[in-house]
Amino acid sequence: MQKKADVLVIGGGPAGVVSAVTAKQFYPDKNILLMKSIEHGCIPCGIPYMLSSLKNPDENKMGNAPLEKNNIEVVSEEATKINREKKEVTTAYGNTYGYEKLILATGSSPIIPNLPGVNKKGVYPIYKIMGYLKDFVKEIKESKSVLVIGGGFIGVEFADEISKLTGIKVYLVELLPEILINSFDSEFSEFATEKLKSKGVELITGTKVEEILGNEKVESVLLSDGRKIEVDSVILGIGAIPDTKLAIDVNLDLDFGKGIWTDEYMRTVDPDIFAVGDCAGKRDFFTRKYAPVMLASTATAEARVAGANLYELKVIKENKGTIAIYSTYIDGLVLGSAGLTESHAKREGFDVIIGEAQGIDKHPGSLPGASNIKVKLIFSRRAGIILGGQVAGGAANSELINMIGVAIQKRMSATELETLQVATHPYLTSAPTMYPIIVAAQAVSRKM
Amino acid sequence: MQKKADVLVIGGGPAGVVSAVTAKQFYPDKNILLMKSIEHGCIPCGIPYMLSSLKNPDENKMGNAPLEKNNIEVVSEEATKINREKKEVTTAYGNTYGYEKLILATGSSPIIPNLPGVNKKGVYPIYKIMGYLKDFVKEIKESKSVLVIGGGFIGVEFADEISKLTGIKVYLVELLPEILINSFDSEFSEFATEKLKSKGVELITGTKVEEILGNEKVESVLLSDGRKIEVDSVILGIGAIPDTKLAIDVNLDLDFGKGIWTDEYMRTVDPDIFAVGDCAGKRDFFTRKYAPVMLASTATAEARVAGANLYELKVIKENKGTIAIYSTYIDGLVLGSAGLTESHAKREGFDVIIGEAQGIDKHPGSLPGASNIKVKLIFSRRAGIILGGQVAGGAANSELINMIGVAIQKRMSATELETLQVATHPYLTSAPTMYPIIVAAQAVSRKM
Repeated sequence: MQKKADVLVIGGGPAGVVSAVTAKQFYPDKNILLMKSIEHGCIPCGIPYMLSSLKNPDENKMGNAPLEKNNIEVVSEEATKINREKKEVTTAYGNTYGYEKLILATGSSPIIPNLPGVNKKGVYPIYKIMGYLKDFVKEIKESKSVLVIGGGFIGVEFADEISKLTGIKVYLVELLPEILINSFDSEFSEFATEKLKSKGVELITGTKVEEILGNEKVESVLLSDGRKIEVDSVILGIGAIPDTKLAIDVNLDLDFGKGIWTDEYMRTVDPDIFAVGDCAGKRDFFTRKYAPVMLASTATAEARVAGANLYELKVIKENKGTIAIYSTYIDGLVLGSAGLTESHAKREGFDVIIGEAQGIDKHPGSLPGASNIKVKLIFSRRAGIILGGQVAGGAANSELINMIGVAIQKRMSATELETLQVATHPYLTSAPTMYPIIVAAQAVSRKM
Repeated sequence: MQKKADVLVIGGGPAGVVSAVTAKQFYPDKNILLMKSIEHGCIPCGIPYMLSSLKNPDENKMGNAPLEKNNIEVVSEEATKINREKKEVTTAYGNTYGYEKLILATGSSPIIPNLPGVNKKGVYPIYKIMGYLKDFVKEIKESKSVLVIGGGFIGVEFADEISKLTGIKVYLVELLPEILINSFDSEFSEFATEKLKSKGVELITGTKVEEILGNEKVESVLLSDGRKIEVDSVILGIGAIPDTKLAIDVNLDLDFGKGIWTDEYMRTVDPDIFAVGDCAGKRDFFTRKYAPVMLASTATAEARVAGANLYELKVIKENKGTIAIYSTYIDGLVLGSAGLTESHAKREGFDVIIGEAQGIDKHPGSLPGASNIKVKLIFSRRAGIILGGQVAGGAANSELINMIGVAIQKRMSATELETLQVATHPYLTSAPTMYPIIVAAQAVSRKM
């Protein structure tokens, strides 16, 4: 079968869907086709919550509704080859699809470490496939003990969710001395450590998994400290690599494992091929170095730029490079990070000034539901602008980190932040006299 | 008695306290004295919550701790006269206090309408005096029915709080056709209307209170529609006027009722006298017209500028004029507004483009605790920048409005907002594909 679309999107994750919908909105006369290899996918960031928070794992499905609503055709076929000269894509079924503009949103695959026993039953990489994950959820729920490898966001969120299920012992093993340490400075990652410990999760840091033991199925795990831990299931939460096979074959790959090269408008070296999301290479906002950031929020931001700019440059990209803005939630505790951490900034050679604030997120603090709040801002001493920020506390911190994110993207100064006008309310925020971003910016200003 | 301070601050509310503390931080060698006429004051925005949310009204006291911690002397005396030539202030006790720099933070007083019966017992203006408010709380709790005059923030928050006390019928009377309409467009103020109605508050809009009836004590209220409502207590929530008597006497007042004139650095026409907070005149960020905004958050922002710039201009004020940024909370519903509303902008002659987004604040929306969320952004068609925004929904909206506030203060474009990098998380925010500020900015961008 041969078919032709004006815009062909490969990938059915958030980057693919948002690219297609944005393209339709900016170019309503173009016909748009989205091709995906997984018929029933999942909302990526919702996967840990299929274990306990969601009553039914199906609630986390990645539906086609926004595509159907926007009159975008969907085919479930695996793309196997791009022909740049003919401008067509061949699929595993042998069909070819022509395009004017091609958007690669092929995503990423979980890293499978080179570890003896890693292929045994009961060892789970996190594939974003509904059928696979439903079986996974069932198996985890029937386990007596689960070991999670990797103390990044995914690992921490799995550990938290599984600890809500009664009767399951949870271990979290991290090679580095602390968890979440790529995104937070120690004093913030410690909040997560304490929270997980209080929930009964056994944290094992600075330790490597040497081998997964058992017959067909995992029975225990051998650690670098010599311990052998009996477990029924192992979750691999050590990250992902860009899925760039299609792109490598036609010389669009940046460097193995670092994604597809794109310019600021998500164009590859081929003017008719764009790449967005996990499969596209990322650079840091400040250092301009390669940044291994794979987030649906980054992916969708890129997808909006690509979708709008397929035929004309309609949306100017002002915020270049990723600010690696994250938030996570552990049993009531919100942790957020944006831009550079203090340790990352120092490692890169920035001369920094730190401002901190601690307080309570209602005023007076005796109002029901009040939480402690901690904010840290990192500034460049010479440039005088904000490089990064971290927050810890209650629910409103999810948007407090986004406010810091805007400040970073607008390269705001300490003076601008310390004179910022903010809305405060007894039930909703710290007191206006103690608003944490302002207090932290004042501390920076005094040290300048 | 005669005494001299380097910096004399008159006023013990948030503006006074923050001025004094900031001055000490920027000029540690100066001795700073704060004079206040009310010995035991209250956190202004916490006053409604003394009725029900706080177990003990004393929890809302405005303490001296930050002053003591910063080695700032406090005297409880009422300033009665300024002598600009001699640079001294006389008090009701006949004492005089000399100064190098004087900061007026004299605040505001509740408006007492010219209404027959307004002086009867049981009619309560909201004075920020602990003793008075403790009696007020006691009387309200013993009432069978309470009528609140004024459907602005204060009135709405009182109505909500009193409705939490069992056995009290609450009436809220507003002259305008809708409540909260100075800060919100109708579709947002309707959320507040519905919420209050669902709590049993009887809303009477487009109606005037003609007379307060009763012998010594209020017994009923006569409305402009002819109705007579029996009530035990009446709360006056119709606003406040700047307390500028001291300033009027020495020709520093802007215009009666509009506060003390100041420049961008909170300096009055007298180079050694500053004014901050409710007593200082406010202008709108966009229109540059007089803006009747009295908020602790605005007051403290001004206080930080004044305190830092007393002897040298250390903090450059970049955000000129008030963006009138507010949030309020009604039984789980957060409403926030910043900048111009659509109706205000149109009234002022702006050619606007509106972008809206509606959704749910978790993803998937079936996660526990999810709320609906609605965001509206107002842009200038020609200038291409954001003029205002409104939000309604769950707790994180308190910082979402502050994020919009940063965008307004940094005069961001729709393109910048639609390509914004934000942190999203299943438990904490809308999906990255549906993040409401981005979706609303995209809608604006397509209409440009």
